[in-house]
Amino acid sequence: MTDLTDAHHMRHALTLARRGLGQVWPNPAVGCVLVRNGRVIGRGWTQPGGRPHAEAMALSDTDAQAATAYVTLEPCAHHGKTPPCAEALIAAGVARVVIPLIDPDPRVAGKGVEMLRAGGVQVDMLPAFTAEAEEVNAGFLLHRRIGRPLVTLKLATSLDGRIATASGESRWITGPEARRAVHLMRATHDAVMIGAGTARADDPMLDVRDLGLGHRAPVRIIADGALSLPLTGRLARTAKEIPLWLMHRARVDPLRQDAWTQAGAVLHSVGETAHGRLDPLGLLETAAQAGITRVFCEGGGQLAASLLSAGLVDRLVVMQAGLGLGALGLAAIADMDIPTLADAPCFTLHDVRRLGGDTLSEWRPARP
Amino acid sequence: MTDLTDAHHMRHALTLARRGLGQVWPNPAVGCVLVRNGRVIGRGWTQPGGRPHAEAMALSDTDAQAATAYVTLEPCAHHGKTPPCAEALIAAGVARVVIPLIDPDPRVAGKGVEMLRAGGVQVDMLPAFTAEAEEVNAGFLLHRRIGRPLVTLKLATSLDGRIATASGESRWITGPEARRAVHLMRATHDAVMIGAGTARADDPMLDVRDLGLGHRAPVRIIADGALSLPLTGRLARTAKEIPLWLMHRARVDPLRQDAWTQAGAVLHSVGETAHGRLDPLGLLETAAQAGITRVFCEGGGQLAASLLSAGLVDRLVVMQAGLGLGALGLAAIADMDIPTLADAPCFTLHDVRRLGGDTLSEWRPARP
Repeated sequence: MTDLTDAHHMRHALTLARRGLGQVWPNPAVGCVLVRNGRVIGRGWTQPGGRPHAEAMALSDTDAQAATAYVTLEPCAHHGKTPPCAEALIAAGVARVVIPLIDPDPRVAGKGVEMLRAGGVQVDMLPAFTAEAEEVNAGFLLHRRIGRPLVTLKLATSLDGRIATASGESRWITGPEARRAVHLMRATHDAVMIGAGTARADDPMLDVRDLGLGHRAPVRIIADGALSLPLTGRLARTAKEIPLWLMHRARVDPLRQDAWTQAGAVLHSVGETAHGRLDPLGLLETAAQAGITRVFCEGGGQLAASLLSAGLVDRLVVMQAGLGLGALGLAAIADMDIPTLADAPCFTLHDVRRLGGDTLSEWRPARP
Repeated sequence: MTDLTDAHHMRHALTLARRGLGQVWPNPAVGCVLVRNGRVIGRGWTQPGGRPHAEAMALSDTDAQAATAYVTLEPCAHHGKTPPCAEALIAAGVARVVIPLIDPDPRVAGKGVEMLRAGGVQVDMLPAFTAEAEEVNAGFLLHRRIGRPLVTLKLATSLDGRIATASGESRWITGPEARRAVHLMRATHDAVMIGAGTARADDPMLDVRDLGLGHRAPVRIIADGALSLPLTGRLARTAKEIPLWLMHRARVDPLRQDAWTQAGAVLHSVGETAHGRLDPLGLLETAAQAGITRVFCEGGGQLAASLLSAGLVDRLVVMQAGLGLGALGLAAIADMDIPTLADAPCFTLHDVRRLGGDTLSEWRPARP
């Protein structure tokens, strides 16, 4: 049984942790609540850019002597750009630390708990909250455990799974509420990603608008194997203001590489599949090496098919609008090699609801 | 303001009326509640096949002297296969009749109300329930007003709007709860309709199973212009037990016509479009002339596209399962001529919810 007081404060800490999603890469989004005699005396969460850490923020401007610290992830034990949080908690006189999750980062991985205990601090695990803490930091944990970011794939389609008319018109299939939800989803991911075909067809900004948030803009990642995007588009013109990363294959025109670099883009070379497409896992691993832990992919059909076929979609968001476009419309998921239904990438329903005039459903991979 | 007692009893009558949906064609599904001194003394609804009418059932075995009758549709005034219900209500001594809706059938169309009033019965309209009464008898009303049945189109698709793999495998994309819901929807429609391509690919029964209902089986309508279906399929083999109507173009092989008639099917000749397909409106009008008021269309893509393009879909039901099939899969809606998004058939969301592991959304035509 989890103590009700512990549960209450851990829930609070997890709520604080979520504030950092999309803002704190390459660090985890952590929350921290300091409690003494039943009163909350400090609160903190990882700040944009990843520093200060949640514990440091909570400890600032408060006397934490004999307090209990609820932290959503094991406090760090290593000297990075900040001193170890475990040390700071000991120095502040914290009596007890409650955590739901050990940090899988090899520089921590239990050493934070050891350091705290060696410093005379009682450390309690809260296994009832492990799943929720894993959920909050799914991207960070995947990044540390298998070296790739979490991938959320969004499909905004007609009733029959189309994302544009035969002539390519796609604005706007879904309504304003769905578009607003997309901007919120962008804001909680480290990067927004699309394929070059979609970038060329839609000439999008891929920024976060109209949320009234002071936030760190997600990196815009374009899968553009041939580095073929025009330098005249909105992405190119804004590359100095909002980070733009182009993922391309090794052999591309060096003049174009120079031009894009001059325009402000960051270029990453990625391996190819047997079919000459960018290797989707290689692409994600490259982004992870640059620190990205959460990727929000907005299509198009080729990139969606590539990620789905490779089993690289961790969360699938489907927005469906009330119109039929027919088989000449552009497919939300391009060709996949699916001989039988049993071969299809399969998802279980997480949630479904109305979103303005559209529907929103969220799916997770069905684990066999 | 609607009197609360009237509202309560009318709601009861509408609930009874719904029991007849799919069972009473070519008649409307009507409910009737008899009330005296606040007590319900009789209840009736249109019986399978359309007779007895709701009023006759409610009046049987009860003394309705001085009672109020709540009827969901204007009582009939003509001698058909049963004597007029208006007459029966007068003869029973009913003092007051409350209705939400005038019957548009030219043989009634206000004459029921006149007959009742001439017989000394007080008749009150309940406009607050007109919309709900219209909804219950949407098929009957369309049939009488414009000569075609209500069309519900069901699409059971993958996340990307596909109804089968490239090789044609379609069983089962959606789960058991969705399939059960389909059987319930079939049971509340007069007819189930599919195209010949789907009939050939799936060899379905199109019957109503596993609902524990004693019911009248919906007519199975196949849009088969060339009368090309094999006589060896399950539809042909069961044509003598469950009604099977084949809608074909005028010029078809007379030997095949004979063979199908011998097998037990009913053949209807329907006009063609400029593209040589069965004219969808002509097809529906032919079914209406044979008495059908509610059609449940289960595809395939060609028939769906044909009905949608012609603006003949009154209710759209989308069931979506958690798998991706990609652009090689069979499209839920075949080619339509949609130059711009503004040309697409457009629907507004009526309801969306979880249905087992799938999603279910219901849509109605967006009226400009």
